[in-house]
Amino acid sequence: MAQRITQQQWRRWTDWPLAGLAVVFLIAYSWEVIGELRGTARDVSEVFEWIGWTAFAIDYVVSLALARPRWRWFYTHLIDLAIVALPILRPLRLLRVASAFILLQRHAGTQFRGRIVVFAVGGAALLVYVASLAELEAEYGHGGRIQTIGDALWWAIVTITTVGYGDVTPVTVIGKLVAVCLMFGGVALIGVVTATLASWIVERVSEEEQAEEQVITALQFEELREEIRALRHQLEKAAETPEE
Amino acid sequence: MAQRITQQQWRRWTDWPLAGLAVVFLIAYSWEVIGELRGTARDVSEVFEWIGWTAFAIDYVVSLALARPRWRWFYTHLIDLAIVALPILRPLRLLRVASAFILLQRHAGTQFRGRIVVFAVGGAALLVYVASLAELEAEYGHGGRIQTIGDALWWAIVTITTVGYGDVTPVTVIGKLVAVCLMFGGVALIGVVTATLASWIVERVSEEEQAEEQVITALQFEELREEIRALRHQLEKAAETPEE
Amino acid sequence: MAQRITQQQWRRWTDWPLAGLAVVFLIAYSWEVIGELRGTARDVSEVFEWIGWTAFAIDYVVSLALARPRWRWFYTHLIDLAIVALPILRPLRLLRVASAFILLQRHAGTQFRGRIVVFAVGGAALLVYVASLAELEAEYGHGGRIQTIGDALWWAIVTITTVGYGDVTPVTVIGKLVAVCLMFGGVALIGVVTATLASWIVERVSEEEQAEEQVITALQFEELREEIRALRHQLEKAAETPEE
Amino acid sequence: MAQRITQQQWRRWTDWPLAGLAVVFLIAYSWEVIGELRGTARDVSEVFEWIGWTAFAIDYVVSLALARPRWRWFYTHLIDLAIVALPILRPLRLLRVASAFILLQRHAGTQFRGRIVVFAVGGAALLVYVASLAELEAEYGHGGRIQTIGDALWWAIVTITTVGYGDVTPVTVIGKLVAVCLMFGGVALIGVVTATLASWIVERVSEEEQAEEQVITALQFEELREEIRALRHQLEKAAETPEE
Repeated sequence: MAQRITQQQWRRWTDWPLAGLAVVFLIAYSWEVIGELRGTARDVSEVFEWIGWTAFAIDYVVSLALARPRWRWFYTHLIDLAIVALPILRPLRLLRVASAFILLQRHAGTQFRGRIVVFAVGGAALLVYVASLAELEAEYGHGGRIQTIGDALWWAIVTITTVGYGDVTPVTVIGKLVAVCLMFGGVALIGVVTATLASWIVERVSEEEQAEEQVITALQFEELREEIRALRHQLEKAAETPEE
Repeated sequence: MAQRITQQQWRRWTDWPLAGLAVVFLIAYSWEVIGELRGTARDVSEVFEWIGWTAFAIDYVVSLALARPRWRWFYTHLIDLAIVALPILRPLRLLRVASAFILLQRHAGTQFRGRIVVFAVGGAALLVYVASLAELEAEYGHGGRIQTIGDALWWAIVTITTVGYGDVTPVTVIGKLVAVCLMFGGVALIGVVTATLASWIVERVSEEEQAEEQVITALQFEELREEIRALRHQLEKAAETPEE
Repeated sequence: MAQRITQQQWRRWTDWPLAGLAVVFLIAYSWEVIGELRGTARDVSEVFEWIGWTAFAIDYVVSLALARPRWRWFYTHLIDLAIVALPILRPLRLLRVASAFILLQRHAGTQFRGRIVVFAVGGAALLVYVASLAELEAEYGHGGRIQTIGDALWWAIVTITTVGYGDVTPVTVIGKLVAVCLMFGGVALIGVVTATLASWIVERVSEEEQAEEQVITALQFEELREEIRALRHQLEKAAETPEE
Repeated sequence: MAQRITQQQWRRWTDWPLAGLAVVFLIAYSWEVIGELRGTARDVSEVFEWIGWTAFAIDYVVSLALARPRWRWFYTHLIDLAIVALPILRPLRLLRVASAFILLQRHAGTQFRGRIVVFAVGGAALLVYVASLAELEAEYGHGGRIQTIGDALWWAIVTITTVGYGDVTPVTVIGKLVAVCLMFGGVALIGVVTATLASWIVERVSEEEQAEEQVITALQFEELREEIRALRHQLEKAAETPEE
């Protein structure tokens, strides 16, 4: 019956609260990683992380329960299960912040290319920040040269732009996995920047040329058809007139 | 007479079995390089490598025998001869795995841009893995910093994304040749990613604009021609009627 | 009344003088940073820098006074205030040189793609030079390897092309902030170069094909409509003639 | 009178011989730089370099003499004068090999995009080789790590692909100038590869779509105009007939 809620309804109800929780989670996580908090402050930030984790876990279980067909959803969302279940993938929980970002963007409602630019700038900034946090947590105290959030941010920007000086590099396995994500993020960033510029230049150049040589449009075509129809009616009348 | 088989028939019969052999060869080669096998295990992996080599050699000889004109095929397939004949080019035999990958893709049958994406992702992953294996084999025990498959994979990804930290670099000549392939692979990867994005953005933007200003299509054109033909027949009838 | 000048008028009067001052400022700043001037020479260069700063400050105050609505201009020009008010952002005053460059370009009046090329080449050259100056000032005497203008220029070009050898890297916080600007400038440079080439190749290829299969233009369309109109007038005359 | 030859005729007579000389110059230069020749062999290679230089100098003087207007040619060819007159720019004489390459390509006569690919591959290979030679000559014996042609080639490829490990970097000023050319060559290479791919993908995708929605062509347009003309002649005949 109509009493049963669907997965879509669940999504609509929980999207914004979960996005908010993701931002809170990001702040708590930042606080913990950057500030190396001790005592009460650390407890508070851990409480927020646990609230975030609990909310994501409940969301996973409810989404799975509401999904139709359930097994297909399970197979296509194994990554969600891994993020919730494996403590080592904790940084990936920050990806929920990305969903907050995507939600915001969907409600911005601008032109397609404008949205691409917002997505590239915001996505790159978020990726750099989250990767820096995760990198700092992974590398801190393991003998590498990434020991402050400043080092981590510097390293992340050197990596995402594919400059890669090599003055600061990760030495742990998790640190290197985070680096790999940033590197491919960098290739994607170059791709998006270039492609958006290319699209814009192609359009501007073709506009410059269309002033000279304009392609026929559907509107002009309709004008022509109207002309021919008028001609036809005139001919019909002319064919009737001599009979009188 | 029709008894003689052609090169095309030979290809059709041997493509899939050889692709399968290439995958077996890749696994055996990985096993040998990564595991540094000793005793029986090593013998088994070498047996599989020899089976792979023998199959490729037979394929080369039969293809040459069936080729028309034979000398032209010989000249345009010197690289195949080198891969089979020179032990130093052994890593290149792994390229046969690429042909398995191409076969799979050909049978996927999707849209052009979808196939490009699959090709770029799969090709980059395959290139990184095969180059890591070849690099590890070339560098192992020569004093460089690539001494485990982890080092090799890290180095390969740093190289293909053109980040190039320089914390891990090849020191042997063969290792550097493998690196050169990866570097140009990286330039190609950036190119494919960017070009695919550009094509997609250009299309989406032009769709947004076509809603306003639509170009005339062949279908609309046919409608217009029909209208004119109808007009002509009417005129012919009108020209006959006054004579009555 | 008409006595009150508008912000546009102010811009028109001050654009060229301020651009000239920016160039003088750039020369004085270069002289100070590169030459490490002592005594009179240093005093002279500082006088020019102060003249530049005073002019920019006056321009900021007058622009703010003339802006309508004033608060909106204030919020959208916070960066201009920061450049004038904070001594640490002194290198950013060199950005006024960029406005001189943009003014020059606006008066060049060529084709769109030509302007993009000029903008990319000139912008990259200016960015490399200004970043080198700012980097040298930030790093000089802080133990890093950027100690001469030659080091700084070498480092800037290695960075903007995203090569990133890492033989010369900034060690101070301000030096790293300058580096981040250059890196993103490099991503933008690759983007502009590629996009301009892509636009040019797409155009040339489509020209090659249009020789075979040409799209109908608005001009041809008008010819066709004229033909139909002539037909219509003939028909009107034909319809009148039998009545006589 | 017609006795005076023009600059165009001079070009037509000397293009191929000078291109050949450039190749000989490249071989002699390679021999000298790579082989560090002593005694007779070195004398022979120097003789060829001198022949090359003499030919380029004569070509410069004759071209200047034949140019109209002469001063404009002089101003726009200052770089040619510098290459001939300054011994330090000797490596730039190798650029004449590029003109041999361009000549060959012009006579290949293929499709536009095919020519771009040939140009990018050939140009990159030539740039890497010539830059390696010039780098080796500049760096040899100056304490850097580029001491063999192998080092130089490895460094050149690491640089042109913008990977930039930093394990081998130039230490001399001339070496760094050569490096700067290679870096911008690398940005251009990425640009050309990406732009060609983008052009190809855009074309293939639009071909896939044109099967569904085909734009009207000039040929179809002509068919339509013929139809209307036939209609008009019929009408003229119909208008004459009733008069009989």
